[in-house]
Parts: sequence; structure tokens; C-alpha cells
Amino acid sequence: MKSDELYGLLRRRGFLWPTAEIYGGAQGLYDYGPLGTALKRRIEEAWTAWFVGRSEDYYRIEAADLLPEAVVRASGHLENFTDPEVACASCHSVFRADTVLEKVRPEGVDGLAPAQIAELVAERHVTCPKCGRATLGVPVPFNMMFGVDFGVTGHERAYLRPETAQSSYLAFPRMWEVGRKALPLGVAIVGRAYRNEIAPRQVLFRMRAFTQAELQIFFDPERFDVPIDAVGDEVLPVLRVPRREKGEESPEWVPVRELRSAELPDFYLFHLVHSYRFFRDALAIPKERIRLFEKSSTERAFYNRIQFDIEVHLESLGGYKELGAVHYRGDYDLSRHAAGSGQDLSVVTLDGRRIVPHVLELTFGVDRNLWAQADVHLGREEERTVWKLPPALAPVQVGVFPLLKKEHGAYARALARELQAAGIVAEYDDAGGIGKRYARMDEAGTPFCLTVDGTTLDPASAEAGTVTLRHRDSKAQERVPRAELAARIASATRLALAPV
Amino acid sequence: MKSDELYGLLRRRGFLWPTAEIYGGAQGLYDYGPLGTALKRRIEEAWTAWFVGRSEDYYRIEAADLLPEAVVRASGHLENFTDPEVACASCHSVFRADTVLEKVRPEGVDGLAPAQIAELVAERHVTCPKCGRATLGVPVPFNMMFGVDFGVTGHERAYLRPETAQSSYLAFPRMWEVGRKALPLGVAIVGRAYRNEIAPRQVLFRMRAFTQAELQIFFDPERFDVPIDAVGDEVLPVLRVPRREKGEESPEWVPVRELRSAELPDFYLFHLVHSYRFFRDALAIPKERIRLFEKSSTERAFYNRIQFDIEVHLESLGGYKELGAVHYRGDYDLSRHAAGSGQDLSVVTLDGRRIVPHVLELTFGVDRNLWAQADVHLGREEERTVWKLPPALAPVQVGVFPLLKKEHGAYARALARELQAAGIVAEYDDAGGIGKRYARMDEAGTPFCLTVDGTTLDPASAEAGTVTLRHRDSKAQERVPRAELAARIASATRLALAPV
Repeated sequence: MKSDELYGLLRRRGFLWPTAEIYGGAQGLYDYGPLGTALKRRIEEAWTAWFVGRSEDYYRIEAADLLPEAVVRASGHLENFTDPEVACASCHSVFRADTVLEKVRPEGVDGLAPAQIAELVAERHVTCPKCGRATLGVPVPFNMMFGVDFGVTGHERAYLRPETAQSSYLAFPRMWEVGRKALPLGVAIVGRAYRNEIAPRQVLFRMRAFTQAELQIFFDPERFDVPIDAVGDEVLPVLRVPRREKGEESPEWVPVRELRSAELPDFYLFHLVHSYRFFRDALAIPKERIRLFEKSSTERAFYNRIQFDIEVHLESLGGYKELGAVHYRGDYDLSRHAAGSGQDLSVVTLDGRRIVPHVLELTFGVDRNLWAQADVHLGREEERTVWKLPPALAPVQVGVFPLLKKEHGAYARALARELQAAGIVAEYDDAGGIGKRYARMDEAGTPFCLTVDGTTLDPASAEAGTVTLRHRDSKAQERVPRAELAARIASATRLALAPV
Repeated sequence: MKSDELYGLLRRRGFLWPTAEIYGGAQGLYDYGPLGTALKRRIEEAWTAWFVGRSEDYYRIEAADLLPEAVVRASGHLENFTDPEVACASCHSVFRADTVLEKVRPEGVDGLAPAQIAELVAERHVTCPKCGRATLGVPVPFNMMFGVDFGVTGHERAYLRPETAQSSYLAFPRMWEVGRKALPLGVAIVGRAYRNEIAPRQVLFRMRAFTQAELQIFFDPERFDVPIDAVGDEVLPVLRVPRREKGEESPEWVPVRELRSAELPDFYLFHLVHSYRFFRDALAIPKERIRLFEKSSTERAFYNRIQFDIEVHLESLGGYKELGAVHYRGDYDLSRHAAGSGQDLSVVTLDGRRIVPHVLELTFGVDRNLWAQADVHLGREEERTVWKLPPALAPVQVGVFPLLKKEHGAYARALARELQAAGIVAEYDDAGGIGKRYARMDEAGTPFCLTVDGTTLDPASAEAGTVTLRHRDSKAQERVPRAELAARIASATRLALAPV
């Protein structure tokens, strides 16, 4: 589906809508309704189970999203977290430089100095996208952080964090202290980050307040053991810099063992595989849609030593979009905060060396991935609209219907309660005909429906006590004894986690 | 325990610490470590299960925490969400008016005009709490919202929401549209709210960024049926206004049926009982510590028609503290937003009347309640420190130990994995002696510990395949067959939810 159609459907079903909609909305802000909230939480839980839950050394924390100025000064965000902004002298509209240069320089303006951008604008006779006149000025850096006056004095500033990662770096010394004082140590946050984007767009893709799931792994660069042999046969869809420079856009499939090199050390590769598998196995993204996109040294942030973006081809947005990434940030973050705070953030390894731990960051955009689940799995099929969500992500796990409200309603309600008591998200529905109820559940991504009918309640029937279990994807139906339902649905909606 | 001692313990165990601790912290901001995060999430889940999960008409949503200025203008926060602030002309320190007047007017300054406060300061010769001079000025209102420049123009403002409730009011029309178009309709949010407190204090009690769990029930004031008879025999610890005016501070125990009156309509009373029971039954607060504190018309916000605060007596803070409340807000909120947005927010009831729904708000401070769990349930007992958390709130549900790491480690690890696969939070620990491991788990509130020993692995023993289950509160031990463990622990750590 196209973006507008997809968004229309999500909005109509109450998955999401613009914040303060009755006031005309607020650019770049969205609210999630009941189904969207549940789906978002399932994605967050799946991410946590996958990246944090299987390790005894990794922990999830929760931190304030306001940070004192000293923190973002040390991290470099106060100085560098900017986008070049261009104003039109005629109509006073303001644009991101990459937007006004979109046609003449589709690859963006990363790495260009303001003077170079101004030169391009002049040379190529670029006009204001709004009024059409050639009155665009020289770009100025626009800091994308939201700042607030903190406290009553008017002298203190705080900033909404531009990335959750900063909170994890701040937590490192305390986590070291309360933990087992060994590396690797992983600190994960699922939480909000905020960016005053010049041009929010593409609904959940460039938001001004959004949810990130990020794991910072603090490690010893001389010793970060990973079971690389266990994943050596995995084949990855990579698009590396040399091929990109030849103009290639599609990935090539390369076995992990062939990617091992000094440039791509085992610890990095292992976590790239781990992230790729999350998209393929937990999020059920067809592997043909995934591209592991290597960023060159000029494209990535200067402190990143290695960066692959995990991209997924989205029909609604007409191309590959970044949904996650693996960043090897070296010791940049802890060194900056050590300098900024005057605290010693080095640690002593088990074999007695004093080091500043390095950081490997696994980052994941929760909102974007919610959108991707719709793009990839929601579609029209014959007469119906069906969202083939991975069962472990479904907001509602089972719909429970009486064939006839009057005759079978009480039994169906009791069945729904019984399933709920077993920890299953069961939704009772008796409105409209069975077909309409299936249609509602199909659109919401509910993998199973149960229907209670006369046979269920007929003591003379050989199938007494069974209900009809209907499968979303195949529409296949079967009769299942009530006593088996809870275990069967629980097992089918559980996230499969292979040991790492 | 005293506040400092409790905070020290929580900090040492990594439950929580000040945000940006290495930079000296940020007043009124705290981060949660692994155990604190898990406990906080359990409290949020318990609240959601209790107040939202049992109703087919109530929903949980998630909304952006930045709101455009028009929203907070309409809600009244731009004008009225202020505290009077007093500055000292000598040392330029700034104080909340109630702080400088603490000694001469312990009941606070709610309802006093700035001129009245200035008069009090002059009359009673109140001096600056910092420099001691009599140079305090006339109070000025200080708006407690954090505002940001929104977008690039510099003309647009947005505010961090001062209460999650506003997001629910904004969501009402869309929720009505996508739902079954009937009242009551409940919209719950568990999320952050922000207040630029003049004087943050008492750790989690007056924070600048905090988590609220709030349920807004939109209802028809002419028809809000509740099963009041089912709760008529419940006895509530109320402190009503007339008794307060006589100087009474302790509650009296009154049966619900005697409280029913025109002033305290059934729908209100029913939800007061429902909230009280949450504190008593789900949070396991001894009922002798709970006080339902009625606010008088001058104390409550002017739009609140009825307000009881749910207070709990906390030793660490030396008295009753507000941990939740039930507010009957009438049609104030939807009427204000209808006026502010120019949208018609009225709805047609099933029997054909057009009304602006009224709002009953159940509000709950998550951080405060985390503190209360420590205050009430964490203490020293003989030789140990033990946190007798309700099992359904425990961050770790079971500790799994090998008696001897070498001999029993593999079996214990496999057992921990098996329990984890069944959805139980099991933590393997083989560090130090068994006594130390019990002590760590006791402090963290883990209700059960399992120890694998020689008998477990001895095929010749009649107790082969059993492990020692140790109960936190009684320290009692028993041998339990491995096959029974998962079901037993799952059932003992499940939140008990009686039907409403």
C-alpha cells in the first residue's frame, strides 16, 4: 500500500493519530490508540527479550529524558547536533538544506560546509520550494535539541535527550559499581528521544518525539569473546562501500565467515548477525527485503568506527529505510563524559589492565518498526484486509465469539475470561455477524479466532466442549477441545528465542 | 527506616540514583537501575491489570508528552499552573512561598493571594531561609511547565505535559469514533509528566519528571451504573471535612453503605472502593496505614467536584503522603477543549441525549508508590534486611542456585532457563556462599529461592529430582519436584484479580 492509504487505515482503526488532532495536530508528534499501544509494547518486549533477556550481563534500565546542559555539552550535541537550515528572504519560509537541494543533489548534504551548500544553491539556480523565487540565503546550523529552562533561576538549562544512549553512558559507573565488575556489560534503554526536526515527515519516520530501543555494550577491545563459529554459515545481505561506489544498490549475499577481517572484527560481525536475525526471525521481515548498508567514513558520525544500517525495503515509502543500526563507537562516549565530568570512568579488567571501555551500540527505532510491520505484513487479499503480524507481536492474540449472542454468549465470555486468566490477550466480540468479526480481527492482526456454537454446548454431540479455532492467515478452521486452547494459543504466540 | 537510610539502600543496590550523577546530579531527576526498572514496570502492570484489564470499556493508550501551546492554554495550565515564588533582595535566592512560611503557616499557602502572602511575611517578620535577612519580596506566580521552542520559526511553543490526563482528553473524540460509541469509556495512560518544581525534594516525591498512571473515565452523569451493592459492606478509612475541621487527623472506619449520599454518589464511592482495594490488596499496604483524605472545596482544584486523596502513612517521610486520588472533574475538561479547539466534543447517548461527558479521574503516582513499597515492606529483621514485596511485584521472582558451583551449576542453569522459558523471571546466582545469595535476594524482594544440591542429582535418593524451595518471608524450606516448580511459582507470583 502507499503511505497515505496505510496511514488512513491505521488511523481509522485507531492504531495511531496526530497528537492534539482536534487542534489541527502538532508536526512530528503522534499518539497511539489501544491497538497501536499494544503493538508497540509487543515490539518493545520482543526487542528486550531478544537483546537483553538472553544475557546475564545485559540489563534494562529507565532514565529521565531531561539532561543537564553539561551532559550534552560533553557529548558534543550542543555544538554538533545540527542540521543546516536555509531561509527564503522573500517569503521567510525555512527549509532543511537537503530539502531545497533534493533535486540537484539527491544524496543529501552530509559533510558539506555551509559555504559549499550556498555555492550549490547559487550555481544550480535553486529556488525557494514555497514561493519559487531565487532568494535562498546562506545555510545556518540549527540545533535540533529541545531546550528548557530548568529550575527557577533562569540560568540553568536542560535538554530533552536526543538519543537514549546518553543516559546509558551516564549510568555506566553506577552499573559497574552495583554489578559484577566485569566486561562486557550491557545497558539497554527503551525510551523516548526528542529532535526538533526542521521538516518532520513520513509519519513515524521523522518524528519530533519518538521511541528508541538501544543497547550499549561496554566492552574490553582486547577481549570480547563471541561464538563467531556458531554463526559462520549465516549468509548476510550486505551492501559494502566498494560496491556502493560502483553505483550498486542491491545487497549481495555473503557468508559471515567470508566477511571476517581486520576491518570487521568478530565481535562486530556477531552482533550484526544477531541484529539481522532479529529482523528476519522475530519481526518476520522477508530476508529479500533486508539490506545491511555499510556507511563510509565520511557518512558516519566521526566517532563511529564501523557502522552498518539495517535497512528494510518499504513499499509505502518507495525504497530502503533505516530501521536499526550497529555502531562501533570506540571509547568516544566514556572519554568525553570523563573529560566533561572530571570523573575517572576507566575500569580495571579481570586481568588487571586499566581501560576505558569501548562501546558497541545496537540501535532500533520502535515507531519506524511499527510502521514497517504494517508496510510488510498488512495488505489486501481477495475480499479482505489482513495484517499477517508475527503472532508474538499481535495486540490481540485471540478473538472469542459466540455464534449466537443469546445462546452462546455466556459460554464465550467465560472462555475469554479463562484465557485471560492464563495470561492470553483474549477479546470477546459479539457485535455483527461472524464474518464482520473475522474481518475486524484480520485487520487488527489477531492470529486466532474462536467461535462457540451449538455443538460446543450440545452434551449429545461427540464434539461437545470443542470450539472452532480459525487461523488468520490460511482461514483454515478446526475444532479444538476447550482444555487444549490456552496451551495451544500461548505456545503459538510466544516469541521463539534460540539460545545465543 | 528513615528517608536517608532507605535511599542509601536503594541506591547501593542499584534500584535508583540521581540522573547525571557523575555531573553532580540534576535536581528532581532520578534514573532507575535494573531492579528499580523491573519493580516500576511491575507496579505499572499491576495498575493496568487492576484498573484497565478487567473492563471491556477501558483502554490503555500512549501519547506524545509534548503538547502544543493551544492545548495548555485551553486547559488553564498556561495561566494557572503556578506556584508563588519569593525572591530575596539580598542574596537573590528564590523560594516557594510555602517554604519560607513553613514555620508560621504549616498548612501551606493554597488559596492565598500574593498580597496576602507578602502581608504575612511582613507581619510575622519572616526572614530569608538562606541569608537570614528580612529582604523577601512580594511573591510572583511561577509557571511550573517546561516550555520549548517547537519547530524552526521561533514563534511556536510546546510544553512538556504537566499531567498525562490532558493527552487522554485530547484522545477522547478519536477513541469515541473508533470504539463502540457508548459511555462509560475509559482512557488510561501510564507515562511521563513534567513539572519545573521550585523545590524538588523527598527523592521520588517531588520530582521534575515523573511517571503517572491515570485513568480518565468519560461517563454520562445521568447514567453511570456501578455494582454498589457488591461493595456496600466494605469499610473505608475516611477522614472527611467536618472531622478535619475539628482537628482530627486519623481516619474513621465507615461502611460504604453509610457513606452513600447525594454528595458522594454511587459511581464515585464505587471507584473510591476500587482504588482503596488496589492499595490494600494488590500493593499489600496494611489497611491501618491508609487514609482516604477528603479535600474541601477551597483545597481542591476549582473544577474538581469531589476529591479524596489516597494517603499512606510513611515512616521514612514522617506522616501521611498522597499516593493516588479520585477526582470527579465534571465536564470541565471536555468543555474547555471544545472551546479551545472549536470542535464539538459532545456525544449522543444510546437513549438519544446529546451531552458533554463528565470525567472521573483515577490518578496514581508510580514513582511515589515505588518508594512506598520500600517504606512499608523493606526493613531489618534479626540479622537480615528483607524486602517483603508482594510476590506479584517482585523484580526477580525466583533465585536459582547450585549448592556447589562445579557439581550443580549446569543443572541449576538449565533449571533457570526452563523457568525463564515458562515466562518466569529467574536469576541464576553462584557467587559466594548460599547465605550471601539468600541475603542478596532478600534485599531485592525475591519471594523464592531454589537450591540444587547433591540429593537433586542422586539417582539413588528418594528425593532425586527435587530442589530446595526457600520462602523469603518465613525462611521456611521444603523440597519440591522440579516438574512442579514452574506452575507453583507462576501461580504464587500472579496478581490476584477478583472480578469487579
